[in-house]
Amino acid sequence: MSMELLKERIIRDGLAIGTEIVKVDSFLNHQLDVAFLYELGAEFYRRFADTQPDKILTMEASGIPVAVLTALHFDNAPVVFAKKAAPSTMTEGFYIAEVTSFTKGVISQARVSQKFLNAEEGILIIDDFLAHGEAALGLISLVEQAGAIVLGVGAVIEKEFQNGGRRVRERGYRVESLAIIKEITEGKIIFK
Amino acid sequence: MSMELLKERIIRDGLAIGTEIVKVDSFLNHQLDVAFLYELGAEFYRRFADTQPDKILTMEASGIPVAVLTALHFDNAPVVFAKKAAPSTMTEGFYIAEVTSFTKGVISQARVSQKFLNAEEGILIIDDFLAHGEAALGLISLVEQAGAIVLGVGAVIEKEFQNGGRRVRERGYRVESLAIIKEITEGKIIFK
Repeated sequence: MSMELLKERIIRDGLAIGTEIVKVDSFLNHQLDVAFLYELGAEFYRRFADTQPDKILTMEASGIPVAVLTALHFDNAPVVFAKKAAPSTMTEGFYIAEVTSFTKGVISQARVSQKFLNAEEGILIIDDFLAHGEAALGLISLVEQAGAIVLGVGAVIEKEFQNGGRRVRERGYRVESLAIIKEITEGKIIFK
Repeated sequence: MSMELLKERIIRDGLAIGTEIVKVDSFLNHQLDVAFLYELGAEFYRRFADTQPDKILTMEASGIPVAVLTALHFDNAPVVFAKKAAPSTMTEGFYIAEVTSFTKGVISQARVSQKFLNAEEGILIIDDFLAHGEAALGLISLVEQAGAIVLGVGAVIEKEFQNGGRRVRERGYRVESLAIIKEITEGKIIFK
């Protein structure tokens, strides 16, 4: 599937709010168009096939659908999702990273059980958005705390003007964004 | 896939904690065995194929993987996941239900944008666990607030001793649980 279709979908179904936010909750992160997300997963596979990840890591909750549907293309690689709250069942050791959500206005702690990230494993990070880069850098930190290797970061939508992509790329990580928004202005979404 | 394999997996990889909790975070709700969950989705399809759902509804975060992988079997029916926090991007109207999490010891508000549940739609509810029934009853409430129709409730694991399945069935809803735990005692998981 051409990523032009993703841009068309974002324009057709997305809602630009102010200059910072694009809502795509009709297909990406509240209601899920699973056939469409499966095709986005195929595109991540096309771009990262050479990396042969042992696992795919994402952030709950909205990263989970696209990560799971990407994993189907990577020979059913296990998906691990970082949790933002510590349930009472999360008793043993975990890796932890602080993540600021600008959208929600809160700092949360992302954590992954130490059992599920192992030294030397190759990890592909997949998420719905790459905005300020907080979530991506938090996930990268979790991987590296485990001594595992970040193979790359894939995002469905990068908001270039919030500089997360630049922050992650400047640290030397490979980033693949399926649609890159340059600007949101007067209710319009402008792609790179 | 026989659901005996699910029971074997729960016994092999699950961890019984006290008399109330079984941790299955190595394949169901933290690390995800996507090929295995895809097969569980096929079993939900087998059991609910006659219901022809318009949408599948689940609860973030741990219901999302199995709901998404179930939707693939239902001709890519859209998945909607209820959110437990209100992000600043959730500006317009939503349906809301109070849900007590006994595991996390908190009451949260599950909400779904009114755009994504419509009158007369047939909704299949899918979740990872059916324990005290709080999440299932909350999801049922969201569906009925919209004037939509609950076609059934599917859970990967029902903890029968916590009576959620009974509560939901007594209200007249169809419930299909892929594995039913009768009792957790002395570190052992006993199936019905």
